[in-house]
Amino acid sequence: MNDRPGYAPTKEQMRNRLSRIEGQVRGVARMVEEERYCIDVLAQISAIQAALDKVAIGLVSDHTRECVIGAEGVQRAERTEELIEAIDRLVARR
Amino acid sequence: MNDRPGYAPTKEQMRNRLSRIEGQVRGVARMVEEERYCIDVLAQISAIQAALDKVAIGLVSDHTRECVIGAEGVQRAERTEELIEAIDRLVARR
Amino acid sequence: MNDRPGYAPTKEQMRNRLSRIEGQVRGVARMVEEERYCIDVLAQISAIQAALDKVAIGLVSDHTRECVIGAEGVQRAERTEELIEAIDRLVARR
Amino acid sequence: MNDRPGYAPTKEQMRNRLSRIEGQVRGVARMVEEERYCIDVLAQISAIQAALDKVAIGLVSDHTRECVIGAEGVQRAERTEELIEAIDRLVARR
Repeated sequence: MNDRPGYAPTKEQMRNRLSRIEGQVRGVARMVEEERYCIDVLAQISAIQAALDKVAIGLVSDHTRECVIGAEGVQRAERTEELIEAIDRLVARR
Repeated sequence: MNDRPGYAPTKEQMRNRLSRIEGQVRGVARMVEEERYCIDVLAQISAIQAALDKVAIGLVSDHTRECVIGAEGVQRAERTEELIEAIDRLVARR
Repeated sequence: MNDRPGYAPTKEQMRNRLSRIEGQVRGVARMVEEERYCIDVLAQISAIQAALDKVAIGLVSDHTRECVIGAEGVQRAERTEELIEAIDRLVARR
Repeated sequence: MNDRPGYAPTKEQMRNRLSRIEGQVRGVARMVEEERYCIDVLAQISAIQAALDKVAIGLVSDHTRECVIGAEGVQRAERTEELIEAIDRLVARR
């Protein structure tokens, strides 16, 4: 039975997503090598970005539930700040 | 004295940021009206997007500290899910 | 009759979009004033950002068709570089 | 001598960037396997996304200069539309 909340992937799901992303990046390298049409390569890159966003959101969900809510006092405050900084970088992609 | 964490704006700061953004949007409308150079209008829109990201991150920070950590049990779980959904929309801008 | 390509808005459409966005920003300011639920404010901000993206894409379309393709030689090369820089800022939101 | 405009990478640079990104994705998979701290994994994902944005901008630059400007008439109009759609997907990450 799986009672995990919607956004929280299992480790198995994370592993599969990342191995699929790795294959997609290799696919883009191959497309560039074969001088494929830029627009098709761009569509592939957008798909990878969306897949990475999904992995990132899964990690944000895990961190919030396990590291922030599971902590107390000063440690919880610190981890909340770290989380907000990470979301900030994610939104601005830097 | 201000002991609020770095990402958490005061209500006064939020008010000022939003009124500045409103002025920037009006500025873009004026630039379009005057048929100003597209690239200058685009730079202005990017600045507004970055300012809106900052407002959003402030709200995420508030929500995490007040609504998620401040809640208990089922309510906390629900609010965490709502937060993750909001971050997901923010990252993907939809 | 309207034979403009899909992404190229008329000036009237741009004007309407920007005035709607201005109203939405005022709405967010009011929501913050009334201490409305953060998640609802965040949904509103995501909607504004999606609307601004649409305005930006319209300008990119205009610039490409009018300023880049319509130019020649060195000027065209310069405008292409400006366009790519603007897209770079747009993607990275800075 | 390299007289390519600033945003246009050589094929060699593209190849290197993509092979570095592939290594970074493998690194993230390893971090998840080793249950590394979420925040560190998120920082790594943001770095990959910024690197992919750079590759995408390079392709947009190539496409604009070679496929759009280099074409004529109906074909040029079609390729411009394809380019704007690709930028739209890139900005909205879908």
